[in-house]
Amino acid sequence: MQKLIFTNEVAEALGLLVAEMAPAGIFMLADTNTRPIAEELNSFGAKIITIPAGDDNNNLETLSTVWTALSTGGATRRSLLINVGGGMVTDFGGFAAATFKRGIRFINVATSLLGAVDAAVGGKTGINFLHFKNEIGAFAPADAVIISTRFFTTLPPMELRSGFAEMLKHGLISSDSAYRRLLAFDPCASNLDDLLPLLEENVNVKRRIVEIDPKETGIRKALNLGHTAGHALESLAMERNNPVPHGYAVAHGLLIEMILSHMLLGFPSAELHSMAMILREVYCPMPAIGCSDYEALLELMRHDKKNLSADRINFTLLRSPGEPVIDSTADVDSIRTALDIYRDLLGL
Amino acid sequence: MQKLIFTNEVAEALGLLVAEMAPAGIFMLADTNTRPIAEELNSFGAKIITIPAGDDNNNLETLSTVWTALSTGGATRRSLLINVGGGMVTDFGGFAAATFKRGIRFINVATSLLGAVDAAVGGKTGINFLHFKNEIGAFAPADAVIISTRFFTTLPPMELRSGFAEMLKHGLISSDSAYRRLLAFDPCASNLDDLLPLLEENVNVKRRIVEIDPKETGIRKALNLGHTAGHALESLAMERNNPVPHGYAVAHGLLIEMILSHMLLGFPSAELHSMAMILREVYCPMPAIGCSDYEALLELMRHDKKNLSADRINFTLLRSPGEPVIDSTADVDSIRTALDIYRDLLGL
Repeated sequence: MQKLIFTNEVAEALGLLVAEMAPAGIFMLADTNTRPIAEELNSFGAKIITIPAGDDNNNLETLSTVWTALSTGGATRRSLLINVGGGMVTDFGGFAAATFKRGIRFINVATSLLGAVDAAVGGKTGINFLHFKNEIGAFAPADAVIISTRFFTTLPPMELRSGFAEMLKHGLISSDSAYRRLLAFDPCASNLDDLLPLLEENVNVKRRIVEIDPKETGIRKALNLGHTAGHALESLAMERNNPVPHGYAVAHGLLIEMILSHMLLGFPSAELHSMAMILREVYCPMPAIGCSDYEALLELMRHDKKNLSADRINFTLLRSPGEPVIDSTADVDSIRTALDIYRDLLGL
Repeated sequence: MQKLIFTNEVAEALGLLVAEMAPAGIFMLADTNTRPIAEELNSFGAKIITIPAGDDNNNLETLSTVWTALSTGGATRRSLLINVGGGMVTDFGGFAAATFKRGIRFINVATSLLGAVDAAVGGKTGINFLHFKNEIGAFAPADAVIISTRFFTTLPPMELRSGFAEMLKHGLISSDSAYRRLLAFDPCASNLDDLLPLLEENVNVKRRIVEIDPKETGIRKALNLGHTAGHALESLAMERNNPVPHGYAVAHGLLIEMILSHMLLGFPSAELHSMAMILREVYCPMPAIGCSDYEALLELMRHDKKNLSADRINFTLLRSPGEPVIDSTADVDSIRTALDIYRDLLGL
């Protein structure tokens, strides 16, 4: 089983892990932003491989430089790769490790909240290819993941909030009480030490789901909550050269899918208002959408999942907080209505 | 579990498999040599992707063209890739399928004896990288493998014999009787229809071992019999620009390791003479080796495996046919003696 360690004593925890694993050869992967963190943590003489930060460098050429560095650095099947960074670094390093000599061990040290909640845990690794997101990849869980809020102190508020949206998603999937604890928490106004126990509860929601269904044939689809609508919003914003942070799009996607849940599964309407309030206060500005955007959004939603027909779109919805319903389908008229209500709630 | 189908009615068997799997989008991968076979088998409108034949093309650039063809051809996670070819095609296609959108289903149709016995079954996929063999890859078993002797009629005798050496290896690992049945068989002088049942028995030896230990942490190492010495011979021949077919090197490696088995584990000496006779009659010419080659061979053997010390080299040896002993180590003096005996037996 994957080891998940929540701590602010990162160097110590990492040193213990490395000693336990007794690898033949240690490598670290960082990007140009997280390289100083990797250097600080490197008490064991690892060779540090650095890739350029930024989504523009998420491609096969960059991956090839990582493989080359492992090869020419003398990595064997008993070597260890430690990925230090956000989602792109752990996605990249996980895939490089999963495919180097048919698989070497790897550890993820998440340095961003979004990375900690989303990418570092769960075994989805990969790279973009021909500009398709995660087109090439593998399911390969890290041998261990270290999660600390220590690295979040320098994150801009927008990035903290982006990661927090994925936490809200886990809360909604998990239980009413877990969701309420998050609603009462402001990641930008609170002490980050208070975030660590919340994060532990939250990431373990994902971990339990992924352990049951690692390859997303069933219950893991619950983790897609908010993402069918969210990806559509994110892609539309991208197409219009007005990109929004992933978590912001997910937060708005959550509201749209909570509205659909209310319409189709009786999800309580009071929750819609509290979520709308959070969006108005925190997850803004988002590019406003109007009626004329509906067809483009529907088309993007159709693309996002393998839908059985063009008329019905597959979602994960909710009966109540803690009661996700995977493979819920909605007809396009219901989705149009949900978008109307979404705009009303946000005053768009 | 992986489906293994032994048949000479390949088109029918493949058609049934495809119908059962009900994929959304079918792709075939062939090389420039096997493309006509793929075309002949393609009764279901698959898009055929062709890569250039030959080890010179076993690299990331070629793999990238396969991924691109899948992407631009509209492959989804519910698509199917059918690899039609020898070891390089099934290694390539298996890895491409294992990593496209984190894994799509694939079928191998083995068109060479070596491919059928060695690469198509067992889940080792991958490509060469920076001239290292299988440097990048994954463990990913095909959903189904079709093995037929129909395609072997046009194989040159040298290729048939090369594949047959791997069959001898499986026989030696499996049982005395299985090994005897192979000794009584000449793949170049016999009716290929008689090879099919032998092949079924033989490939199932590998399949059973791989099912127990897919990632080669234990008993799967038995399949390395003949390969520590064989790879050293193969690499030495390659370095000297006088390459030998893989199976020829394995056949000679089997004899060297049978001699070591005799010296260290009491493997019966009569078997050494019968194997030496086969090598002299069939697996020749091989580049002659002399005393002056011993150090180079030892150095190559040290490289081939993760050895615990420079003095002892790790082998899979045999107590008798059917009784493999993995993780047997031999000191370099014993190996030198075994090489002396090998040269004596072959009159080198």
